[in-house]
Amino acid sequence: MTDERILLIHGSGGESTRQLIQQRLLPACGNEWLNPLTDAAVLPLLQGRPVFTTDGYVVSPPFFPGGDIGMLSVIGTCNDLAMMGAIPRWLSLSFILEESLPLERFDKILTSIRSAADEAGVQIVTGDTKVVERGKADQIFITTAGVGELLLPAPLQPSRIQPGDAILLSNDIGRHGMAVLARREGIQLDLDLQSDVALLSPLIQALVQQGIELHCARDLTRGGLGGALLELATQSGCGFQVNEVDIPVVPAVAAACEWLGFDPLFVANEGCCVLFVPASQASAASEVLQQFHAGRWATRIGTVTEACKDVRLKNAFGIQRPLSWHTVDQLPRIC
Amino acid sequence: MTDERILLIHGSGGESTRQLIQQRLLPACGNEWLNPLTDAAVLPLLQGRPVFTTDGYVVSPPFFPGGDIGMLSVIGTCNDLAMMGAIPRWLSLSFILEESLPLERFDKILTSIRSAADEAGVQIVTGDTKVVERGKADQIFITTAGVGELLLPAPLQPSRIQPGDAILLSNDIGRHGMAVLARREGIQLDLDLQSDVALLSPLIQALVQQGIELHCARDLTRGGLGGALLELATQSGCGFQVNEVDIPVVPAVAAACEWLGFDPLFVANEGCCVLFVPASQASAASEVLQQFHAGRWATRIGTVTEACKDVRLKNAFGIQRPLSWHTVDQLPRIC
Repeated sequence: MTDERILLIHGSGGESTRQLIQQRLLPACGNEWLNPLTDAAVLPLLQGRPVFTTDGYVVSPPFFPGGDIGMLSVIGTCNDLAMMGAIPRWLSLSFILEESLPLERFDKILTSIRSAADEAGVQIVTGDTKVVERGKADQIFITTAGVGELLLPAPLQPSRIQPGDAILLSNDIGRHGMAVLARREGIQLDLDLQSDVALLSPLIQALVQQGIELHCARDLTRGGLGGALLELATQSGCGFQVNEVDIPVVPAVAAACEWLGFDPLFVANEGCCVLFVPASQASAASEVLQQFHAGRWATRIGTVTEACKDVRLKNAFGIQRPLSWHTVDQLPRIC
Repeated sequence: MTDERILLIHGSGGESTRQLIQQRLLPACGNEWLNPLTDAAVLPLLQGRPVFTTDGYVVSPPFFPGGDIGMLSVIGTCNDLAMMGAIPRWLSLSFILEESLPLERFDKILTSIRSAADEAGVQIVTGDTKVVERGKADQIFITTAGVGELLLPAPLQPSRIQPGDAILLSNDIGRHGMAVLARREGIQLDLDLQSDVALLSPLIQALVQQGIELHCARDLTRGGLGGALLELATQSGCGFQVNEVDIPVVPAVAAACEWLGFDPLFVANEGCCVLFVPASQASAASEVLQQFHAGRWATRIGTVTEACKDVRLKNAFGIQRPLSWHTVDQLPRIC
């Protein structure tokens, strides 16, 4: 245990920056592309069309039950690539560190980043580190960008959603948001709340390999399942009929949501997605997903209809209610 | 003039986030890749090898004489791609905003981003926006990542630097660092200090088109010219002999450095690079550079020698001194 901390000088571009990179970053994340420490990484030619994404991570607190900001920053960006039908290949990693961050915490986050990158089969090929004064950031912010290769002849996208498609959910919802919230607010719920943070690219790849005709996929991060469905209804021009009773929510999440007044439909996830497939392939697709830990509760939750840009939820009593954006804005800094 | 400000809810992934994107981000930065607002952008196949880079921008203050954080975040990343011999093509843009940032400032920054992207000929194809509580960031942080296409059969890199190569400097040094510092500290120097922020990709492309055999290039950001030379000496295994008297420094920068106790060699730049070319092409290369505003003071400043990893400066009296890392760590949050 050491009391060393990040200092402003670590971000000045001089000897201390060099030491931070040589002694901590490269041992954790280094590879043939990152090690030369040039201004940019020159990558091999891609076979498929390049797919490009970015996300900033400001989750508070940076360590939460089931994960940390390092793991999240790698997995979240890989999942965004997977949602387009791409295989994640290359990541960039940009840190904004608050002066006084204990180096021990930074090292733990680097270890998490490496292990998530290894799991995802991606290489961290370029990066940047900035330091700001105490009180000008909140411990650590990470922005990752990712480049992947399109696995399919055409990307998954909302315009491919068709009336009659089955709507699948890859797992139960609400665990990430409630786990972070409970830790952040120091709420003692006596519940086993763990983030669901998980890599989704293997699930998408398996579906493709098993011949499932995927039309669209979207991971349920900020805004949750409800936000994703509303966005996709708008973007596809279709209506969605969803059976609320078919949406898996573990008892701990259901209880936490009830006590704290949240709707699990709008709570963030980091290892869960909705998928749109032809109805004839719904069962086969669910079975493929269920072979993965991150897909163990995969199930069909609804159907795409002709109705225009409308999301309707049917509850256990058969009563329908429309889903609306006004119920969304809930939790800041969940990722 | 409006008093609207960024609120935490703008980062929640719900309706307010959607409005911020639809009403401000897309009108400023939109294009066929960004507009669909999918998880990632699917790009056309690249012709050359992909080159990938990232940088976080935390410059304080975000508006400084000669530029702002928006312009810097686009130009800095394009310059990093150019330094490898690549043409910048695609950018990602990730914002971390502090609650209470006036929307008018955000809009100004977006306008700057668009105009810099247009100048560079790059498209912003994917992005992210997060908001943190007041006092947990400093107005605005921007992280950009860039993907370019390699223009040359092989990337520019330190291993290509050879004894006998001429060392060229593309312009005068120290303007960015001193302009930001003076504005930040509210120092009234009565000097016309303006950042040198400028796009370097057109200079590199012109050199290549004119048949100059470029070996290596490095932009002089954090750490300045001194930091870049020290890094390149280490990375190339060569020694550099530099004539201090040949390094252009405008009088305002020289005066500010003298008054404030900085060495212009280690002050940051955002529109200046060192270049390594065969000595026989030094004059031709300087002439190409001088055709650009950002290269108007381009000149040869030294020669690569056999000596190992050593940077030696010769002053006006012919006296040599070794450059060392210990003199570097100077200014935080300069970019």
